[in-house]
Order: sequence, then structure tokens, then C-alpha cells
Amino acid sequence: MTVVTISILCGFVAILYGFITSRQVLNAPAGNEKMQDIAAAIQEGAQAYLNRQYRAIGIVGVVVAVLVFLFLGPISTVGFLLGAILSGVAGYIGMNISVRANVRTAQGASESLQTGLTAAFRAGAVTGMLVAGLALLAIAIFYWVLTTQMGFEPKSRTVIDSLVALAFGASLISIFARLGGGIFTKAADVGADLVGKVEAGIPEDDPRNPATIADNVGDNVGDCAGMAADLFETYVVTVGATMVLLALTFGDLVGNEMLNNLMSLPLIVGGACILTSIIGTYMVRLGSSNNIMGALYKGFITTAILSIPAIYYVTFQTLGDMNATIGASLDGTGGFTGMALFWCMMVGLAVTGLIIWITEYYTGTEYRPVRSIAKSSETGHGTNVIQGLAISMEATALPTLVIVVGIVVAFQLAGLIGIAFAATAMLALAGMVVALDAYGPVTDNAGGIAEMAGLDESVRNKTDALDAVGNTTKAVTKGYAIGSAGLAALVLFSAYTADLREFFPDLQVSFSLENPYVIVGLLLGALLPYLFGSMGMTAVGRAAGDVVVDVRDQFAKDPGIMDGTSRPNYARTVDLVTKAAIKEMIIPSLLPVLAPIVVYFVITAVAGQANGFAALGALLLGVIVSGLFVALSMTAGGGAWDNAKKYIEDGNHGGKGSDAHHAAVTGDTVGDPYKDTAGPAVNPMIKITNIVALLLLAALAHGMA
Amino acid sequence: MTVVTISILCGFVAILYGFITSRQVLNAPAGNEKMQDIAAAIQEGAQAYLNRQYRAIGIVGVVVAVLVFLFLGPISTVGFLLGAILSGVAGYIGMNISVRANVRTAQGASESLQTGLTAAFRAGAVTGMLVAGLALLAIAIFYWVLTTQMGFEPKSRTVIDSLVALAFGASLISIFARLGGGIFTKAADVGADLVGKVEAGIPEDDPRNPATIADNVGDNVGDCAGMAADLFETYVVTVGATMVLLALTFGDLVGNEMLNNLMSLPLIVGGACILTSIIGTYMVRLGSSNNIMGALYKGFITTAILSIPAIYYVTFQTLGDMNATIGASLDGTGGFTGMALFWCMMVGLAVTGLIIWITEYYTGTEYRPVRSIAKSSETGHGTNVIQGLAISMEATALPTLVIVVGIVVAFQLAGLIGIAFAATAMLALAGMVVALDAYGPVTDNAGGIAEMAGLDESVRNKTDALDAVGNTTKAVTKGYAIGSAGLAALVLFSAYTADLREFFPDLQVSFSLENPYVIVGLLLGALLPYLFGSMGMTAVGRAAGDVVVDVRDQFAKDPGIMDGTSRPNYARTVDLVTKAAIKEMIIPSLLPVLAPIVVYFVITAVAGQANGFAALGALLLGVIVSGLFVALSMTAGGGAWDNAKKYIEDGNHGGKGSDAHHAAVTGDTVGDPYKDTAGPAVNPMIKITNIVALLLLAALAHGMA
Repeated sequence: MTVVTISILCGFVAILYGFITSRQVLNAPAGNEKMQDIAAAIQEGAQAYLNRQYRAIGIVGVVVAVLVFLFLGPISTVGFLLGAILSGVAGYIGMNISVRANVRTAQGASESLQTGLTAAFRAGAVTGMLVAGLALLAIAIFYWVLTTQMGFEPKSRTVIDSLVALAFGASLISIFARLGGGIFTKAADVGADLVGKVEAGIPEDDPRNPATIADNVGDNVGDCAGMAADLFETYVVTVGATMVLLALTFGDLVGNEMLNNLMSLPLIVGGACILTSIIGTYMVRLGSSNNIMGALYKGFITTAILSIPAIYYVTFQTLGDMNATIGASLDGTGGFTGMALFWCMMVGLAVTGLIIWITEYYTGTEYRPVRSIAKSSETGHGTNVIQGLAISMEATALPTLVIVVGIVVAFQLAGLIGIAFAATAMLALAGMVVALDAYGPVTDNAGGIAEMAGLDESVRNKTDALDAVGNTTKAVTKGYAIGSAGLAALVLFSAYTADLREFFPDLQVSFSLENPYVIVGLLLGALLPYLFGSMGMTAVGRAAGDVVVDVRDQFAKDPGIMDGTSRPNYARTVDLVTKAAIKEMIIPSLLPVLAPIVVYFVITAVAGQANGFAALGALLLGVIVSGLFVALSMTAGGGAWDNAKKYIEDGNHGGKGSDAHHAAVTGDTVGDPYKDTAGPAVNPMIKITNIVALLLLAALAHGMA
Repeated sequence: MTVVTISILCGFVAILYGFITSRQVLNAPAGNEKMQDIAAAIQEGAQAYLNRQYRAIGIVGVVVAVLVFLFLGPISTVGFLLGAILSGVAGYIGMNISVRANVRTAQGASESLQTGLTAAFRAGAVTGMLVAGLALLAIAIFYWVLTTQMGFEPKSRTVIDSLVALAFGASLISIFARLGGGIFTKAADVGADLVGKVEAGIPEDDPRNPATIADNVGDNVGDCAGMAADLFETYVVTVGATMVLLALTFGDLVGNEMLNNLMSLPLIVGGACILTSIIGTYMVRLGSSNNIMGALYKGFITTAILSIPAIYYVTFQTLGDMNATIGASLDGTGGFTGMALFWCMMVGLAVTGLIIWITEYYTGTEYRPVRSIAKSSETGHGTNVIQGLAISMEATALPTLVIVVGIVVAFQLAGLIGIAFAATAMLALAGMVVALDAYGPVTDNAGGIAEMAGLDESVRNKTDALDAVGNTTKAVTKGYAIGSAGLAALVLFSAYTADLREFFPDLQVSFSLENPYVIVGLLLGALLPYLFGSMGMTAVGRAAGDVVVDVRDQFAKDPGIMDGTSRPNYARTVDLVTKAAIKEMIIPSLLPVLAPIVVYFVITAVAGQANGFAALGALLLGVIVSGLFVALSMTAGGGAWDNAKKYIEDGNHGGKGSDAHHAAVTGDTVGDPYKDTAGPAVNPMIKITNIVALLLLAALAHGMA
């Protein structure tokens, strides 16, 4: 068995875990008939949305696949389709288990907090392991077929281009799914709140509100399916880019066997961490203190600690002598040891842990940031928002410092490839991180079902407790995804420059900051997250407005709805949000696809090809330099606003119904599109910009040949 | 007469204009006794604040002056002190005329809209011409003394270092004044609104509110004195950096006489545009349509159009043959013609015009952005803020594109020095732009005085109309300042790299994006505006909270205040805000001063001096790449929120007192620290970071010698 085949085996273990665990979830009792009715409506709506979303994406995908075929040939097209389809599959299955676990979590919570937690976390773990497993399988099997069955050398252009095309497929789906799902979930959420809580004066998740089902559908298609596609993409792009960078920079410095070993290492690290993640999922148990966050932490910490020896072991097995220098240039400079790579991966684990810890600080109800927002709510809506914005900006500082230190340490240890392995190790824990996150929408839905089915208040209290922790874990995943993007973007940029040298060896491209076209590229790149974020937020506003109009119309035409005598037309609202979200997701998603192409051609026309490439390269870094801050501030700020509201609802600063609470609801509403639409979509946006640039290079090179 | 002495003469003309016009302002009738009482209280408060602020800055200034003396010698110290003191003087005189014009504007508005406009605009024009005149005089006289009286060559280190030190003095004052004034004005404004409008239910500017005088004082120390210091700094730094870049890059390529001509050109362009600005001020007159913005535009357009032949004429007179190539390298490459420089300056004028036009679009009540915010207010506080944030992010796009096109065109025409001259031409119009801006706080105050003195409602309506336009012109100036910073930052970075090559000729510093330390520098630089903005906004929140506590205490201890029988203790509130603002401004202001030094030393310790310089250089560009967007979004967004409120108050979407109006007030409150504290302070922050880096280089070089 080779290293790659063992990695593939680990991927299948993840799928098997998903299969077994989803059986366990489905075998749990599904509650009474009313609960099942509600769950069925949610399920139906989510199914209908995803079907339509994937159909829309499918049309774009086919067009792009034809372009990939024309410019890069059949194998890359297979890679593109593989990435695209598996990304869709991960989201699809995750959503499917999530919409079935919600009602079982509600039922479980009516028994005990632990039973509710188990149902929700297991559903999250299924999604988590499927994301990691499918992502690993996609790369590993594709690489295995190319290098062993089809006989391509690991450093061959076919392998490199195909891996990039695979990443492109994953990214393209991901940006649509993240943004479409994000617009759906927040349009439904904000719309339901505005017309329900504010206008009609009925509580959240009241069954009389025609938008409640849409709101619950949104949790599944946004926070579950959208997030799964996003993390699938992040995994594939990061591991794929590491392999591509290895092939591009060490292809001629080490022998074929060593190169194959090096390129297999990210795969086996991913495989090993799937196993440690599975072990970790069994450690998620409430202690005597009933601390939910503590239970989740137990799982994560187990995974992280077990991963240390696991990573050491697979590195040693793959590379042999840990202290031998690999890949030094002919003059003896450069290169790295297996030990250095191991330490770089430890840097990746440390960055992950620190980002989780910092995110918890900024979004947890026990610490200064959330409490300062809660306190500022006493003096009104305005001061709540001001403080929330201030916290969201402040929240970028520590993660940035962590990422910077990570870059410096990994680079000192093993150069650029060290940074790539740090990013790979971060992503290796994706199974566990996604499990923590995907549990959130399940509990959110469970609360909704409990409310709508009129279950006892104690059930709702338990689901609320589970949900509050979900706000933090959701913020954690986003911080983790964007943090890893900070490292991955460097890897992608290095791949871009290496590719450029290979394709255009005679072109003198200056990436120096002294070249004004580099500044131009940085500025235009920095603009993209702003424009993209603005479009996402306006889209939510528009779609939420449609929801308000629809619900008002339903209330007006059938007064029986408010009296509770007739059933609102839930499906009509779901359908409306579906159409709106799909319409709204197209243009912003095309922005990062088209921007690199336009910038390259315009600058090339004005100042020559070398400056065109320089501006394009700078654009890639401009996107990350600005996108990192936009995404970190939005996701942390949104989480903090949400939990400040929850903190007040727990009875602080006047509690529910007080003026402070009203102000906190405003902050929460502002935070919604921040943290669930615009912010998280920046991560796939950064990646797709980079990958389009790599593909553009390849297409230009092929066009010239 | 040399070109430099003519420039100096133009500077004195500006001072003379200021003197004559301020006489005219002071000769206008100052209203009844009650109005004069109120004005006196505002005057006293503003005076007291500025005295204390300058004392605090003075202490920092003396410490820094000693460091400048130790590292860079006596002449640089004189430059530093000159920049610092004249910056203070510009703010001081501007504030002094502003606090006297406010009451005369109120009185004028009771006669006619034109009389009110004249009083307010004249006061603004005094500040504008003083800022431009003093800034020009500072550089021109200093340069004249150094090169003619002391006999230094234009390209000598003494001249270069002294010009940088001069800019440093101006920047250091400016960051404190901008931030201190910004915190003061918004803490008083937000605090007064919270405790007055929201809690006590009394209207804005009600004399029973103890914070009203502080609010009016804030307009003068923030929007007038703070803004004047900021634009003084922008002028000195931009023109100074252009001269320094000329000396560094063409010092060895052209003869001493030509270098002197080139270095004099920015001065005489500034001088010529002072004359065209003065002519422009006389064109500000209401037409038959009573369109206030139109009246102001007449002044600006006159100035801009007259500046075209004026700039051509002085360029021709200074350089002689407009088509001869200047400064080509020995191998015949590079260099530029006088004609090319002229076109670059036209680019600067075009960028200015376009930014004004775009800012008006984003902040004017007639266009989509403001109206979309107003409309979104109908559905509540949350949607108002979401839409406002979306607009604020969108508002960065067009200015960025304009700046990018400006960079590309100017660079194509005349290389880096072309960009420098484009920036210089932008700043040459500073007199007129500041005049438009400084008129804003005067009208704002006039409205307050009219309200407090119980003047007829028709007077308040006129001052309100004047004030609404002031919101746009204030946003315009900020967009203009940060836009010019985008160009100036490139010039400063070029000066940094040129300096580096001169001081450390043997050090191989790679500013390539392929160097991870460059990425580290970019990320850390990009972080600064976020951290700085967060600190500024939290400071406003804290200080506003102090105001609320103080006012509540005054109301509680003396019920006569609310009954209108006893006079609130205005001075106590002013004093409190003064102390809070000065305390809060220190730490954020030191952030951009210390960050470059810390980054250089830490990275040098970790990865060697070459990477230390690379990271520092990248930090300078990271600050601008991120700061441009933070500042543009904050200033445009804040202006849009403010005018959305005004648009609703004009009777749209339910008008005053409606739910939409309440939501719009929230947006306005959020926009306050955005547009008047954190946003505008980013501009001096960017500059000071760059200048500290230049000084650090010089200090390191001297330390080694």
C-alpha cells in the first residue's frame, strides 16, 4: 500500500463514519406528528432550494466546463467537474442529515440536554466528516489515477493543471453556495423578524408567521450546506495548492520518488487527522457542570492533541530521515528537513487553536467585548451599533498578529513550503471544526420546531442554551476559514509566480512595491471585498423587503392566519426567497471570477504584458490584505452582536423587552448579513480570484503554444 | 525675483486676504445680546479646549523635538517646530474666526439666505486661505532660507531631511488635533443627543441641555480647527514629498539650476492656485434659484478653470521649453517634459473634480444612495444601518477607480514624479476646498445659536438649508484629503526607497510581493487603520457616556434646569469633554508613530535588516491600501446617513417624529464617529506612518555614521 492509497482509505473511513453516524441520528425518535409535519415542511423547502440553486449553478458550471475543456483539455475538465460535483454532494448530504436531525434534537432536548446535544452534534459530525472525507478523496483519488493509472509524472503540467482545475470546480460551487445560501438565510431571518417581531408583535418562530419555515430552511441551506461547500473548497484549494507549489518549486530539485512522497504528505496528514477527528467526536460529552462549550472543547482538544503524534508519525513514515535536508538548490542553499515540516504543521495547529480561542473571546458572553456591546445598548440603538462596529474592527488585530507570527515562523523553518504545510495542517482539522459548526443550525432549527410545535418552555430553554454556543462555534469556523485563507493566499500567490516563470520565462515581471502597477493591483484587489460585501448586504436588504411584502399580503388576505385558525402559505414565502436568493447571488459571484481577467487585459493593453501580470499578481494579494480584515471584522462583529442580545435576554441590563433589548435586536439585525452573508463569502471569493488567475496563466500559455 | 520668492509673495497674499476678509466678517452685525452671550460661551469653550489641547500636544512635541535634535540636528529641529507651530496657528486662527462668524451668520440668516451664506462662507474662506497660505509659506520660506541664505544645495541631505522634519511637525500636530477634535465634537454631539433628544425628550440645541454648548464648541474644534490642521499637514506633506522625491531621484541627473527650478515648481503652482482660489471665493453667490450647492460650485469651478492656464503659465515660466526632455538617465531612458508635467497636474485637477462629484452623489439628498438609506429606514433601525453600511462600502469603488486611473495616466506621462505632481496639483486647490468645508461648522453653530436664542423658525430653516449642504462639503473635503493621500503615499514610499538606496547602498532589500516579510508588512500596515478606527470609535462612546452621566447629574441636582428657570452649568460639561478628549487622543495617536519603529526592529531582529526595511516599506503601503477604504467608506457613509435623516426631516417617508425618522436618527448617530472621528483621522495617520519611516531611516543612517 502506498501513502496515497492509505490516504484514500482514511477518506473512506470518514464516509463510513458518516454513514454509521447518520443511521444513529435517524434511529433516534423523531417526536410527535406536529413536530414531524413542521420538519417535513423545512425539509421540503430546503430540498427545493438546493435543487434550484444547484440547477442555476449547474448552468454556469456547464458553460465554465466548456471553457475549461477548450483551454485546458479533457483531464482538467474532469478535475473541474469532480471538484464541482463533490462540493455539491458534501453540501447536499450535510443539509439532508441536518434537516432530519433538527426534529430529533428537539425531541432529544425534551428528554435531556445531553440527548439533545448528542443528536445535534452527531448530525454536525456527519457533515464534518463528509466534508473532510470527500475533499480528501477528491484530491487523493484524482492524484492517484493521474500518477499511477495514467502514468503522469507528479511534476507534469497535466497533474498541476488538473489539480488547479479541481480546486476551481470546488471554489466556483462554493462561492455560489455560500452567497446564495447566505442571502437566503438572512433574507428570511431579517424579513421574518421585521414583519413578525417588529410589525405584528409576535415572537420569533411563531407558527402564524408565514416566513418562519423559510427562516428555518435558511439555517440549513446557508449555515449547513453553504458552509459545507465553503470548507470543502478551503480544504481542496489549500491541500491542492500545497501539492502544486511542491511540484512547481521542487520538481527539478528532488527526484520523482521524493517529489511523490512530498506531494503525498498533505494527503496522509489529512487522512491521519480524519482518524483523530473521529476519535475526538466521541469525547463530546457534557460533564457534571453541564457546560456545552466545554463538551465541544473536549472533542476539539482531543483531536488536536492526538494529531501531534499522528502528524509526526506519518511525516516520519513518508519522508524517512526527519533530519535530512530535502530540496536544496544545486549550490546547497534552501531546502528543508522533515522535522522542519513537522514543526510548520505544529504552527498550523497552534494558529487554529489560537484563532478559536480569540474568536471565543470576542463572541462569548463571558468576556469584555460582548458585554461592552450589551452595556452600550442601555444608551440606545446608535451606541449599540457604534460599539459593535468598534469591536468588529478591534477583533481583527489578534488574529492578524497570530497569522503574521505563523507566517514568519513557518517561513523561517522551511520557507514558502513551510507556510503551505502550516496551512495544510490547519485544514487537516476541518472535519472536527466543521462538526462543531454544523451542529449550530441543527439546534437553531430544533428551537424553531419546539416553538412552533408548542413544546414545553423547558425544551426551548435547552435548545436556546445549545444555540448560544452555536453562535460562537459558527464564528469560530469563519475565523478559521479566513485565517487559513491568509496562509493559503500566500501559497497560491507563490504558485502564480512559479507558474509565471515556467510559462513566460523571458518576461521580466516586477512584483516590487516600487512598480506602480503593483500598487494599482493592490488597490483594485483591496476594493473587491468591499464591493462584494456591499452587494451581498444590499441583496439581503432587497430580498428581506420582498419577504415583508409577501407576509403583509398573506396577513391582509387571510385574517385567519393571525387568529391561528388558518395555516399560512409557508411554501409561497420559501419559494419567493428561493427565487430572490438565486437571482441575487449571480452578479456578486461573478465579480471575483471576472475581475482578474479584466484587470489583466486592461493593464496589459495600457502598459504591456509584464505589468499586466504584475498588476494581476498584486490584485491577488490585495484581495487577501483587505479581505482578511473585512471578513474577520464582519464575522466576529456579527457573532458579538448576536450574543450581546442573548446576554441581555438572559436577564442582564433589563432583560427581554427592555430598551436595551430593543437596541440589541437592532445590533443583531445588522450583524446578520455581516456574519452570515457578506463576511463568510469573502473566503471563497479570495480563493476563486487566485485560482482564476492561475487558470488564466495556463490558458494564455496554451493559447500561445 | 525668483520663482520661490514669488511663491512666498503669493503666500502673503493669502494671509492678506484672510486679514481683510476676517475684518469684513467681524464688521457684520453680531445679533442681539442673548445671541452674543451664547456665542461668547462657545468661544470661551473652544478657546479653553484648544489651549489645553495644544498644551498637551506641546508636551509630546517638546519630547519629539529633543529626539529630532539628537538624531537629526538643529536645522531639522527648526523645520519640525515650524511645521508644528504653523499647523497649530492655522487651526487656531480658523477656529477663532469661526466662533465669531457663527453668531453673525445667524444674524445674517435672519436678514436673508444670501447674507447668511456670505457670512459663513467668508469665515470658511479665511480658514481656507490661511491653511493654504501658511502651508505654502512654511515650505517656501524654509526652502528659500536653506538654499539661498544658508547656501545649501537643493539636493543636499540637509534640505531633504529638513523638509521631512517640517512635514513631520505638521503631521504630528495634525493627528492629535484631528483625533482630539474629532473625539470632542462627537462625544459632545452623541452625548447631547442621547441625554437630550432620547432621554429628556427635548429638541436638539435646546438651551436647557447642559451639553449644547459643548456640542457647538465641538463643531469649531473638530470640524474647523481639526480639519484645518489636517489639510495644512496634507499640503505640507504632499508638496514637501514631491520636492524631496525630486531631490532624491533627479539630484544627480539634472544640474543644480534645473533641480532648483523643478523643486520650485510645486511652490509656484501652489502660489498661482492661491490667486485663482481667491478669485473663486468672490464667485460664491446665490443665483435666482437660491441653490446653495450651486453657489459653492460656482466658486470651485471658477477656481478650477482659472487654474488650468495659471498652471500652464507658471510651468512654462519655470521650466522654459515645455517639450524638452528633463532628467533622462545617462543611457537616455526616463525623464519627462514640462508638457508631461502639465498634463499630470491636469490629472490632479480631474481627480479632484471627480472625487467631489462622486462624493456629492453618495452624500447628496437627490441621489440613489441617500434615498435608499432613507427608504430602508421605513423597515426599522436595523435595515437603516445595514443599508448605510452597504452604501459606505460601495462608496469606495468609484474613488478608488479614479485614483487608480490617475496613477496609471500620471505614471505613463512622467513616471513617479508625474504622480507626485498630480498630487501637488490636487493640493494646490486646498484653499478653495477648505473654504467650502470650513463654512459647514459655522452654519451648524449658527443653527444652534438661532435655536438657543429663540429666533424665529424661518431663521432656523435657512441655517438648516445651509447646514445640509455643509454635510456634503464636509464629506467632499474628507474624500479629497484621503484621495490625495492615495497619491501622496506612493510619493512617500518612493522617497523611502530612494532614501534607502542612498543610506544603505549595499543592502539588498526586496520589496517584491514574493518576499513573505513584504506580506507581513502589508498585513500589519492594513491592520493599523482598523485598530486606530476602533480606538477612535470606542473613545467617542466612552466620552459620550461621561457626558450622559454629567447631564443626568445636573438635571437631578437642579430641577430648575428643565423648567427653564435656572441656567445649566455649560462650562462644566465643556470642561469634562475637554479632559476626556485629550485623555483619549493620546494612545491612538501614538499608534502610527510607534508601529513603524516596532515593526522595523522586531523584523530586523528575526530576519535581518534587509527584511526589516522590506517589512517597514510594505507597512507603509499596507496602511494606505487598507486606510483608503476605511476612510472613504466611513466618511461617505457617515455623510449619507446624516443626509438620509435630513431627507426624512424634509417630510419624506413620514417626516419628523415618524418611525422612519427614529431609525434615521440611529443611522446618523452611528455615522457621527464614522465620519467625524475615525474616518478623517486616517489621512494624517497614513502620512505620519510614512514620515516616521523616513525619519527612522535618517536616524539609523546618522547613527551608523
